[in-house]
Amino acid sequence: MTLGILRHPFGRPLRRTDLPHQVIAKRYALPVFASDALSSVAYATEEILKVLALAGTVYFRDAIWIALAIVVMLVLLMFSYRQTIYSYPNGGGAYIVSRDNLGESIAQIAGAALLLDYTLTVAVSISSGVANFGSGVDQFFPSVPPFNPLARTVIALGVLFVMWYVNRRGVRESGKAFAVPTYFFLACTFLLLGAALVKWLTGHLGTVQNVRDLVQGGQSLTLFLLLRAFASGSTALTGVEAISNGIPAFEEPKSKNAATTLAYMCGILGVLFLGITLVALGTNAQASTSETVISQIGRTVFSSSSPFYVCLIFGTAGVLMMAANTSFADFPRLAALQAADGFLPQWLTDRDNRLVFGMGITALAGFAGTLIAVFHADVDKLIPLYAIGVFVSFTLSQTGMVVRWTRVGRLQPGERVPRYSPEGALVTTLEYDPHWRAKRVLNGCGAAMTATVSIVFAVAKFTEGAWLVLILLPLLVFVFFRIHHHYQVVRRQVALPVHDLHQYILKPVHRIVVLALNDINRYSLSALRDMVQNVAPGTLRQVVHVDVNEAQTEALRRRWKEEGLEELGLPLVIIPSTYGGGNVVGDLISYIRGLLAADPDIRVEVVIPEWTPSGGLLQWLFTRLLHHMTGARLKLALLPQSRVTVTNHRYVLDELRPRRKNGRATGDESTGESHDEPARTSSN
Amino acid sequence: MTLGILRHPFGRPLRRTDLPHQVIAKRYALPVFASDALSSVAYATEEILKVLALAGTVYFRDAIWIALAIVVMLVLLMFSYRQTIYSYPNGGGAYIVSRDNLGESIAQIAGAALLLDYTLTVAVSISSGVANFGSGVDQFFPSVPPFNPLARTVIALGVLFVMWYVNRRGVRESGKAFAVPTYFFLACTFLLLGAALVKWLTGHLGTVQNVRDLVQGGQSLTLFLLLRAFASGSTALTGVEAISNGIPAFEEPKSKNAATTLAYMCGILGVLFLGITLVALGTNAQASTSETVISQIGRTVFSSSSPFYVCLIFGTAGVLMMAANTSFADFPRLAALQAADGFLPQWLTDRDNRLVFGMGITALAGFAGTLIAVFHADVDKLIPLYAIGVFVSFTLSQTGMVVRWTRVGRLQPGERVPRYSPEGALVTTLEYDPHWRAKRVLNGCGAAMTATVSIVFAVAKFTEGAWLVLILLPLLVFVFFRIHHHYQVVRRQVALPVHDLHQYILKPVHRIVVLALNDINRYSLSALRDMVQNVAPGTLRQVVHVDVNEAQTEALRRRWKEEGLEELGLPLVIIPSTYGGGNVVGDLISYIRGLLAADPDIRVEVVIPEWTPSGGLLQWLFTRLLHHMTGARLKLALLPQSRVTVTNHRYVLDELRPRRKNGRATGDESTGESHDEPARTSSN
Repeated sequence: MTLGILRHPFGRPLRRTDLPHQVIAKRYALPVFASDALSSVAYATEEILKVLALAGTVYFRDAIWIALAIVVMLVLLMFSYRQTIYSYPNGGGAYIVSRDNLGESIAQIAGAALLLDYTLTVAVSISSGVANFGSGVDQFFPSVPPFNPLARTVIALGVLFVMWYVNRRGVRESGKAFAVPTYFFLACTFLLLGAALVKWLTGHLGTVQNVRDLVQGGQSLTLFLLLRAFASGSTALTGVEAISNGIPAFEEPKSKNAATTLAYMCGILGVLFLGITLVALGTNAQASTSETVISQIGRTVFSSSSPFYVCLIFGTAGVLMMAANTSFADFPRLAALQAADGFLPQWLTDRDNRLVFGMGITALAGFAGTLIAVFHADVDKLIPLYAIGVFVSFTLSQTGMVVRWTRVGRLQPGERVPRYSPEGALVTTLEYDPHWRAKRVLNGCGAAMTATVSIVFAVAKFTEGAWLVLILLPLLVFVFFRIHHHYQVVRRQVALPVHDLHQYILKPVHRIVVLALNDINRYSLSALRDMVQNVAPGTLRQVVHVDVNEAQTEALRRRWKEEGLEELGLPLVIIPSTYGGGNVVGDLISYIRGLLAADPDIRVEVVIPEWTPSGGLLQWLFTRLLHHMTGARLKLALLPQSRVTVTNHRYVLDELRPRRKNGRATGDESTGESHDEPARTSSN
Repeated sequence: MTLGILRHPFGRPLRRTDLPHQVIAKRYALPVFASDALSSVAYATEEILKVLALAGTVYFRDAIWIALAIVVMLVLLMFSYRQTIYSYPNGGGAYIVSRDNLGESIAQIAGAALLLDYTLTVAVSISSGVANFGSGVDQFFPSVPPFNPLARTVIALGVLFVMWYVNRRGVRESGKAFAVPTYFFLACTFLLLGAALVKWLTGHLGTVQNVRDLVQGGQSLTLFLLLRAFASGSTALTGVEAISNGIPAFEEPKSKNAATTLAYMCGILGVLFLGITLVALGTNAQASTSETVISQIGRTVFSSSSPFYVCLIFGTAGVLMMAANTSFADFPRLAALQAADGFLPQWLTDRDNRLVFGMGITALAGFAGTLIAVFHADVDKLIPLYAIGVFVSFTLSQTGMVVRWTRVGRLQPGERVPRYSPEGALVTTLEYDPHWRAKRVLNGCGAAMTATVSIVFAVAKFTEGAWLVLILLPLLVFVFFRIHHHYQVVRRQVALPVHDLHQYILKPVHRIVVLALNDINRYSLSALRDMVQNVAPGTLRQVVHVDVNEAQTEALRRRWKEEGLEELGLPLVIIPSTYGGGNVVGDLISYIRGLLAADPDIRVEVVIPEWTPSGGLLQWLFTRLLHHMTGARLKLALLPQSRVTVTNHRYVLDELRPRRKNGRATGDESTGESHDEPARTSSN
């Protein structure tokens, strides 16, 4: 069916049983969880150079010390996170660890920081991927002008759209397919480093030539500038926490395998980052706004016409897309977790009919798209916003671990204390550990270091854009708490303090049923029939009509009498129209309020007869535009009215159905319609 | 109360009885009905000169012949319209005359043409008023740069906004207030003409100096160019039809007074138009894009520092605003007439609680605002669109009169045939008239002339913008007919072919009431109570729950049993969740379709328990964002479903009400809330 894509734009609905519960082998786990961390080597070195370039290219040599400092941090983080992995075998993301140890409130800070950073991961990775792709295009087609900001933005948004669509369809997290781009990237980069080493040893390394659009600057090399370079380079560490989130996906023994994968990942990341930085310095790579450092060293080591260079460019762009894609799994999952705890809208917990968290995916795409559009897909402008969130969540996670070790220290040997989430799932088991003091020191060091780095980031990158993050983070947390407050109020309000429900339900309620009658016609008559037949005997009933037009009212009254309708015993109440211009809704509301005020125990059921077209939402909207919409306006006006029930008696008009060649789509309804009483009478 | 302006932005609601039924004395009728026609002298001469300037200023002398031709047309029109006024004493606008004589379909063409021209009257008059005001500012503050298109557009839109607001509030059509600007304008212009005459006779008339931004052009003076100048100048005739629309507002004898006023108006219009054209030629006024001709001759005759010049400028701007304002009365009235005939959306017939046709006023402001914005309030660009509509409606009206005289000719002497509108109002009375042939010839000449002029307009101004009108007019008529078709189909569908209504209503209908239960809480329990108590005995009833979460479903089932609810005799139906991710709506719809399919005679009443906040629409929208909106989505999905009634049991949450200092606004609802059963139970 050609309309299939419109009916199910993301593919046929899946059944609940299709939800996969698979585990990933270790050799596939590395690429699945590491693409985010590893891809950051594509821009981390370059961002260091770009800051140093402000003081002058002679200071590029300092990049190696900055890179070394970052690798030291990486090692410390790795050991810290190994402990988290063993402590939280069911998943130990910053949100869960904070919630378990520091409480729900502090966990919201971690949650906000992570959501912000997942969004930035998407924006930065896609922008960097497009920049690398653009550098490649520049080399192969020198006649094509370099991507201008508009072209860059459009391409980045296009990539984002595809990513959104693919994720709404639902990606099977089959490590095998995901492994290809990451392993391909690793192969390319190690080949690059190997070739560079060989050329360096043989004295043929050469230097980068013909770089355009150099970053210029006449600043002096202050400590502040060095800290900024360090902060920009630390984006290399984003994604290190991914494995601690995903432990349940590992093969048994889960924690051990996860820890091993983490070690591999950090090792590779450290080697790549240091290696690329060294080669960049060795080849005299430049900080350019139109060509990435990866492209520069690639074409210097391989030559720009070499297939290896092409592979490197595509491999880099590919792994960056993978990195962005991992956020499309992480963001909705975290949002669902926070929503389940009552700090984000409840519908973020819903898996849609493709079994993915569709609304979370769309929200992420929307936020990341906004960032890309506002910053014109410019990596240099996005980087200052990045990584603060990651380091804030690192800090909270490590601090949570410190609290955990203190709790462990209070236990007796052999004692085991399971801890559960608010939803009742097992989060962790506290168990006596003789080395708890040492482990607490390790996590404490991690926390202190990441806290320091967070502050350095905030200060060093403040004017570059970090101020935005420092506004957004508290704002997000505030909004989360407002949402939570709202849910608590609603929960309290809908909770039921009635003890004998059976008796409560049977205790009689005064009720009056009011049918709003505009004219005697098919749909109002159908509603009238329902009212006459199906309302319990003894219930008060009225048919009310607002007298906006005396002639019409008189005709209605006459017809009511002539057709024998008054024998039904229903009073026909004519409400005089007080306000100008047939303000039917206002008059009906006044009348209903009058009923409610006259008897404080009464409930009013307002029956609104309406017709609708049979052609679905769009046709409904269109036809509504041509009619008074009295029913809809009445329903809206009754929204905040206590003790009122609105019954919307709908009558489907058959002839307004759009004709389709294929009878299948409308078959069901037309069967229904032909059995409706008045229609049958008319057709005979 | 400070929020008054928000609750009633257009003033306190008026009662129906406030609708005025006043008549206007003749001396006030002239300014009320003539401002549109008279104000056009402010731009008609200038537009002739601007076209002639394209061939060269030496051809300006031809303007006088063009003006004379237009005045001849004016005289013919006056005599034609006198006949209309006597024939249609209850109002003889082009729409009514066309509908009465040429049928409803042809009348739609007149209606579309008039609606278009009312819109253009607003856009042109406001733009011209702003241009005149700008010319004055230019003279007094030479240091202020002339209005650029943006400033002009913003000012014009601001004036339009004020006019929209004033008309939404409702203007009492008290001729006295309306008379001031028109009489002031007349005084200023006659003073101008008088002073010019005196100066000319004494040889001191002088010539216009220092005109900037002249219109340049090197075209040759073709017949085509002359026709374009004629077409542009004919905008002077717009508004001549206004009196024939408004006859019921005149004092008795209505027709005679109206005809006299028409004669006065046409006389003044002719004198002013010829006079201003002569003075413009005598003072050698120029075609300029930054200063109006009125301003040029004003400062030449009076001197630019004279208070008379200031009066002239403000008088001209004032009468142009009055002219725009008359469209705000005419457009909504005509739209209401067409809507009542079923060719425009029905809600255009509604007077709002300020007793004005609010939607029509808003529509006019929207369309005119769009024109002003698109054409940057540039009179020269708007003029080519203008007047075609007026002349099309003139033609149809005169043609209608020809048909009418033919009918009159068929009558016997003394015979009288009343004719009624579709709504049953008396439109006209056909009465034998011995001079019917002569009168038919007069209206026939009028029709032939205006038809010719319409075609001249369309051709001469085609490339200047008239093409847009030639597309819009048929498109509008097409849309009107589509709307009419829709109403006919709906009317046929809702019409009732059942003869014995009493029996129809008592004939039993199979029905099943289905309560969608998410959880046992205040609002669902309140709905359950209604269902148990108030549904007629013997009706099938079910409580259904979609099993999206096994633990929750189990808890519900257990609670249902423990609370003794199963003793109510209602089956608790658990619907398995087939589709992924708690697609509750999809599962419920499938279930309801199943019920409908199983019994082709059954009607399903779906009871949807919902809570709402008590704070009105905005808070409702906001809180909806935080919740699943299952109820709303279910209601939408059930829209095109036959044989289904939706009962929305609403429970108002009290604590979500925004706190107000002034208890009055919330008193009514809170009284209600405290009497609701579960609330009372909880408070004790």
